[in-house]
Amino acid sequence: MPVNINTKMIALLGKPLFQSYSARVQNAAYKAAGIDMLYFYSEVENELLQDVVNGIKHMSFAGFAVTKPNKVEIMKYVDEKDTLCEKMNASNTVVILPDGKLKAYNTDGTGFLRALKEEMPHINVEESIFFCMGAGGAGRAISSVLAYYGAKKIYIANRTISKAGKLVDDINKNFAPVAEFVDLKDTVLLKSKIHKSNVILNNTGLGMFSSIDETPIPKEFLNSEHLCFDATYNPSKTRFLIEAEKMGCSIMNGLGMFLYQGAEQIELWSGKSAPIEAMRKELMNIISEKAQE
Amino acid sequence: MPVNINTKMIALLGKPLFQSYSARVQNAAYKAAGIDMLYFYSEVENELLQDVVNGIKHMSFAGFAVTKPNKVEIMKYVDEKDTLCEKMNASNTVVILPDGKLKAYNTDGTGFLRALKEEMPHINVEESIFFCMGAGGAGRAISSVLAYYGAKKIYIANRTISKAGKLVDDINKNFAPVAEFVDLKDTVLLKSKIHKSNVILNNTGLGMFSSIDETPIPKEFLNSEHLCFDATYNPSKTRFLIEAEKMGCSIMNGLGMFLYQGAEQIELWSGKSAPIEAMRKELMNIISEKAQE
Repeated sequence: MPVNINTKMIALLGKPLFQSYSARVQNAAYKAAGIDMLYFYSEVENELLQDVVNGIKHMSFAGFAVTKPNKVEIMKYVDEKDTLCEKMNASNTVVILPDGKLKAYNTDGTGFLRALKEEMPHINVEESIFFCMGAGGAGRAISSVLAYYGAKKIYIANRTISKAGKLVDDINKNFAPVAEFVDLKDTVLLKSKIHKSNVILNNTGLGMFSSIDETPIPKEFLNSEHLCFDATYNPSKTRFLIEAEKMGCSIMNGLGMFLYQGAEQIELWSGKSAPIEAMRKELMNIISEKAQE
Repeated sequence: MPVNINTKMIALLGKPLFQSYSARVQNAAYKAAGIDMLYFYSEVENELLQDVVNGIKHMSFAGFAVTKPNKVEIMKYVDEKDTLCEKMNASNTVVILPDGKLKAYNTDGTGFLRALKEEMPHINVEESIFFCMGAGGAGRAISSVLAYYGAKKIYIANRTISKAGKLVDDINKNFAPVAEFVDLKDTVLLKSKIHKSNVILNNTGLGMFSSIDETPIPKEFLNSEHLCFDATYNPSKTRFLIEAEKMGCSIMNGLGMFLYQGAEQIELWSGKSAPIEAMRKELMNIISEKAQE
C-alpha cells in the first residue's frame, strides 16, 4: 500500500549495511501480510546512536532493527529489556511500546531455535548436547539461547581462544553452567567432544564464498547420529554441510534462522504473524539475482 | 525501485498531517523520475522538533519537509538559510548538505511564482500590482515572494485586521516597502484598490468545501483586466473563480502552486528535475478518489 498517515517506519541501524538483504525481505513480508510498515537502512555508528534513537522515538516508527556495531551499545538507550535480551546484553530488535517507551529484544538466537523446531522437530534442546564452532555474533546468540532454553551441554570452540573463553564464561555466569571450552588444536579432545554431541554448529562463517573451500573440522569426526547446522545460507551448502551429508548426518543451513529472526521481529513490531513463505520466496529471489550478477 | 542501501528518506514534519496529499505525489514523482528517495509522514509538535531533527541529521535522509506548526520553529535548528527563507523566517524544506549541515529553504511562495510563469506567462511581476486577500500561511508566503521578486505594489486585506497589519509591516521591513493594508469593510476603498490591481489573490480558503458558497469579494469589483488566483485547488473552481470567469477575468487555481512547491523540493533534495506531469496525474487521481469516497 502507498505510504500514508498510518504507515510506521522501521530502520536498520548498523554499519556497514550494504550486504544486508533485510529491507527486501521485510518489505516483501509487510506487503504479503498487509502490514502498513516500511523498512529502510540507516548506517549509524555507536557515537551517534543515542541521537538517532532519540529522534526515532518521537517519529512515526514501530521500532527499529539493530546490527553490528550497535547491538551492545543500544542497551544503554532503551527503557525496558526482554529477559533473554538482558541476559545476552545485546539487542537486534527494539519496539516502541504504546506508551512511547523503548523495549529491547533479541531474535538472533530465537530465530535459530524456531528454525530448528520447524526443520528438525525430533531435536529436543533439553536432552541435547551442542558443539558450537565460532564465538562471534552468531555463535554467541545461538549458544546463549540454547543455554537459556535448557541445553544439557554446550561445547564452544573458536580459532581465537580468548573469545571462546569469554563466551563460555558469559554463558556459565548469565545463563547456566553448561558451557565448556574445547581447544580446536587438541584433536583427540575435539573428536571425543564431537562424538558426544548431538548437534554440531558451524557459526564460524568458514565455507562462505570468501572461504568456500574451508571447513572448521575434519569430516571423519562426523557420523550419522549428528545433526549438522551451518549459520551460512549462501552457498546453500557449505563444504561443512556437503561433507556432513556424505557422512550421513542430517543437515540444516542458516536460511531458516535468517527468516525466523526476521519473522519474530515482524511479530514484535506489528503484532501480526509473519508470512514466512513470502519471505522465503523473496530471499530466494535475491540469492538467485545475486548469483547472476 | 525497492528500498536499498542508497535510498534516501524524506519525512514531512508537522501536525496534523492526515489531510496531506504530499506523500503520494512525492513518491509518484520519485518513481517516475527514477529518484531513489522515499517520503513518509511523521507528526511532530514544536517541543520535540529539535530531537527529531537531530536524529534525522544522522540518518539516511536527503532532507525533510516542514509544515504547520513547525515552519518558524525549524529555523532555530538549521545551520544555513537560503536568503528568501531567512527573510520569510519560515521554512517548508530542509536539505541535508553533503557536509551534513542543514540548510533551510522555502518553496511555498516560489511554487506560486513558478506556476504563475508557466500558466500566465504574460504577467510580469515587476510591473504588476497585486491584491492579496488573506494573511495566513499562503497569503504570507505568496506576498513575501512577490515583494522579494520586485512586485510594484501589494495590497493586503484580511478578516482579522491585526494579522494583515503584521504581514504588511513584515513585508515592508524585511523585503521592500511595497505592502499596503486595505480594510475589507471600507468597500469604496476596497473597490478602488482592486480596480488599480492586475492580479487578485484569494488566499483566505473561502470557497473550499467547508465554505463552498462563500467568496471574499463582490464579483462586481472584478473586470476582464484582472487575473484572479485562488490558492485552493479542490474544488478546482471556487465561487470566487467561477464569478471571476463570468466577469471575463483570466483565472488560475492553486493546483500549479501545490505541484511546483513540491517540484522545487524534489529539485533541492535530489538535484534532479521534477516530473511535473507525473505529479499532476497522481494529484488528479487522489482528488478523484476522494470525490468518490
